[in-house]
Amino acid sequence: MRLTYEEIERIAKKFGTPYQIYDKTMIVDHVRNFLSTFRKTIPKFQNFFAVKALPNPEILKILYEQGCKFDCSSLSELYICKQIVKNENEIMYTSNYTSIEDLETVIESNCIINLDDIDGLDNLVTACRRKNLEIPKMICFRLNPAIGNTSSETKSNILGGSESKFGMSEERLMKAYQTAKIVGISKFGLHTMIGSCVLDVNHWKDLIEKLYITVDRLYDEANIKLEFINLGGGIGIPYRPDQQPINLEQLVDVIHSSITQCIKKYNLPYHPNIYMENGRYITGQFGWLVAKCCSIKQDFETTFYGLDACMANLMRCGMYGAYHHITIPRLDDANGSQIVASIVGSLCEGNDQFCKDRKLPDGIRKNDLFVIHDTGAHGHAMGFQYNGKLRCPELLIEDDKSIRMIRRRETFDDLFGTCIST
Amino acid sequence: MRLTYEEIERIAKKFGTPYQIYDKTMIVDHVRNFLSTFRKTIPKFQNFFAVKALPNPEILKILYEQGCKFDCSSLSELYICKQIVKNENEIMYTSNYTSIEDLETVIESNCIINLDDIDGLDNLVTACRRKNLEIPKMICFRLNPAIGNTSSETKSNILGGSESKFGMSEERLMKAYQTAKIVGISKFGLHTMIGSCVLDVNHWKDLIEKLYITVDRLYDEANIKLEFINLGGGIGIPYRPDQQPINLEQLVDVIHSSITQCIKKYNLPYHPNIYMENGRYITGQFGWLVAKCCSIKQDFETTFYGLDACMANLMRCGMYGAYHHITIPRLDDANGSQIVASIVGSLCEGNDQFCKDRKLPDGIRKNDLFVIHDTGAHGHAMGFQYNGKLRCPELLIEDDKSIRMIRRRETFDDLFGTCIST
Repeated sequence: MRLTYEEIERIAKKFGTPYQIYDKTMIVDHVRNFLSTFRKTIPKFQNFFAVKALPNPEILKILYEQGCKFDCSSLSELYICKQIVKNENEIMYTSNYTSIEDLETVIESNCIINLDDIDGLDNLVTACRRKNLEIPKMICFRLNPAIGNTSSETKSNILGGSESKFGMSEERLMKAYQTAKIVGISKFGLHTMIGSCVLDVNHWKDLIEKLYITVDRLYDEANIKLEFINLGGGIGIPYRPDQQPINLEQLVDVIHSSITQCIKKYNLPYHPNIYMENGRYITGQFGWLVAKCCSIKQDFETTFYGLDACMANLMRCGMYGAYHHITIPRLDDANGSQIVASIVGSLCEGNDQFCKDRKLPDGIRKNDLFVIHDTGAHGHAMGFQYNGKLRCPELLIEDDKSIRMIRRRETFDDLFGTCIST
Repeated sequence: MRLTYEEIERIAKKFGTPYQIYDKTMIVDHVRNFLSTFRKTIPKFQNFFAVKALPNPEILKILYEQGCKFDCSSLSELYICKQIVKNENEIMYTSNYTSIEDLETVIESNCIINLDDIDGLDNLVTACRRKNLEIPKMICFRLNPAIGNTSSETKSNILGGSESKFGMSEERLMKAYQTAKIVGISKFGLHTMIGSCVLDVNHWKDLIEKLYITVDRLYDEANIKLEFINLGGGIGIPYRPDQQPINLEQLVDVIHSSITQCIKKYNLPYHPNIYMENGRYITGQFGWLVAKCCSIKQDFETTFYGLDACMANLMRCGMYGAYHHITIPRLDDANGSQIVASIVGSLCEGNDQFCKDRKLPDGIRKNDLFVIHDTGAHGHAMGFQYNGKLRCPELLIEDDKSIRMIRRRETFDDLFGTCIST
C-alpha cells in the first residue's frame, strides 16, 4: 500500500469510514507487466478481465486502456462493458444455465458466447429463432475435465470435477461441438476453469494436458481447429503473508511448454490462441478496505475489535472463512508485543468476522483505522445489504496520489428506493 | 401455499421470474395466533419483529397493525420503522460494536436501546456528551450465558457461548448495569439470544434458568427490578418436510412455568415483562421464491436443474447449506417416480446451489416453475448483486388473492447508479 498512515486518516476524515480504495498506478503497472510477460512468449495472449471481480466502470476503463478485454457473466456486466469497448468481440459472455431471454440480448450484442452446456446451445438456437437472429459464427464451450478441487484457499466453491455445476464432460462436449456444426456454427473456442486462487504453476500443466486430450479429439473426430483456448482465471494472489506470489515468468513458461509438448504429442497442425479470464490476479492486491474500530470487547478471555465495516463490505471472510491480512497503520512501526484477538463486523450474524484468534499488535485503541488487505477483487462486488447495512464508497488513488470517488456511499434511498407503498 | 399452479404461472407471466411472494392473510392469521397464544398466559407479552428478516415497509405495516413492535439492527431499519410506529418505544435497537456516530442517531430517536457490551455504554455516554443529549432513562443489555451452539439447522452462526461475538458474560454484565446506574440510567431490560431456528421447547427452559441467575443477582446485588426480559428470537420453523412445527401452547407453557419456577426459587418479588424478537417464525413460512427452470444438464450421472434465481434471491442454501423445500407445481399431483437431482442458480460461483442430490418428481421440463418454500424471512433481505445479478420483485398476495407488487425488480440503473464517472 502506497498510502501513509496520515493519508489513510485524511481520506477517512474526508469520505468517512468504511471506505474501499484502489490504487490506479499499481493496477496499471501490474496489468502491463502481466500482459507483456505473457506476450513475450505468447504474442497473441489475451486476458478477458472477469468483471464480477470488480465491476466498477472506472476501473474497467483503466483495464481496457491497458489492453484487457472483458469476461461478463450477466446482462448487467454486458451492459456496462458495451459502453467501454470499441469492438464487441472484446467481450466474452460466460454464464451458466442461461435463459433464452438472456441469450437473446447476448446474441444481439455480438460478443463471444461461451456456453456451459449443450443445452445452452439449444437455448441459443431457440433465442435466434424467436428473435429472427442469425446463429453466431463462433461459439465457445466449457469443458469440465473431471478434475478440480474445492478452492485451496476457501475450502469451498467447487469449479471442476463431477460434483461441479460448471462445464461438460469430454463426451458431452464432443457432442456439443458436433451439434454446433450442424446448426451452422463454424468457428470455435474451448474454455475451462477448475480452480480459483491457485498459486502452484503445476496446476496449469495438469489442466493443459487434460485440455489437449479434447483439443486432439476435436481435430481428429470433428475436424475442428480451435480459434482459442481459454484457460480460465484461476491465478491466485498471496492473501497470507507467508505465501509467495506466483512466478509469472515460470507460469508463462509452464503454459507455453505444456502446450508445445501437447501439440507435439498429438501432432496437431495448428496453435490456438491462448486466453485467460483473470480477475482476482489483476486487481485483487491493489484494493484495501479501511474501517474504524468502533468498540472493543474483552470477555471470556477473548478480545473482539468491532469495526464499522461488515459483510456488506467484504463477504469472503464470513462466507468462506477466507484469510485477509489486516494491519493497523498507527501501529505499523511498533516493535512491541502482540496479542491474539478477533476482528468482527457489526452485523447481527455470527459469521460476520474478519478474522478469529489472529496475532495483532498490542495497543489497539478505539477509533483506530484497520486496513483489510487484498480487497481489490470479489470485495465490494460481493457485499449485501443484510441488516440494512449500506455499502461503502469506492475510491481511487490517482497517479498523482489525489483521491477520486468512483462510487458513492449508499443512502437509505438506495436501500428502500425500489419499495412500493400504497 | 394458497396459490394454484395456474395462479403461479399467471403471476410469472405478469411480473416475470424470479419473483418473491408473500401471503398477507397467512401472515396475519399466524401473527394473531402467535400473539394471542402468548398473551393468554403472559398478558403483557410483546414481539419485537426482527426487521432484518423481512425489511419491506409494506410487510412491516401489516405486522405493526397486528400488534408487533420492531427490533432494528441498523440506522436504515430504524429510519424505516420510525415512519411506521406511533410511539418511539415500540422500537428496540439491538446492535453490536455500534459506533458513537450511530448511537447519536439512535439516542435521538428515543427508542429502547439494547447494548451488546459495556463498551457500548461508554460509546453511549460519549454520544450524549458530544450531542448534548440526556442519557436515556432505560437501557437493556445482552447476556451471553456461556451456552449456545452453532445453529442446529445451518451448522453455523454462533450466537452464544464463549466464542460468540455477541453479549456479555455474567460478570461483565453485572458491571455494565452498575456502571449504567452510576451514569444515571434508572430502568433496565435484559436480553439474550443463544440459538436460531430452534424447534425444541426445552431450549427456552435452559435459557430461562440461565437468565434468572442473572435476574436474581441483579436484584440482590444491584437492587434492579428489570422492566423486561427479552428472550431473543430463536423460534424455528420446519424447513424440512419431516420436521414438526413448534407447539406454541407448549412453548408458552414452558416459558411461563420456567419463569414461575425461577421466581419462586429465587424468591423474587416481581415479574418482569416478557419480550421476544422473532422474525423468522413470524413470516418465514409465508414467503416463496418462484423461479423458472432455464436449462437442464445431465452429466457425470448428475442432473442439474438451472434456475433463473440465484444467491441474489436466496443466500441461505449457498451460504449455510441450509435446507429449503422445493416443489414443482406442475408435477404436484404426479404420483409417478422420483429422480435425484441438484437445483442450481446461474452465478459463476460453485456454492450457488439450492439443493444437492435431492429427490424430485420425474418429468421436470425446461420452463417449469420451481417454488422454493419458506423464503419469507432472511430471503430477499440477504440477497447480493454479485455477478451483476439484479434482485427480484417482492409481491404480496392480498386477502382477496389479488397480487400487489411491494418492491419492484432492480434495473441496471439501480446497480450502477452510485458509480461516478469523470
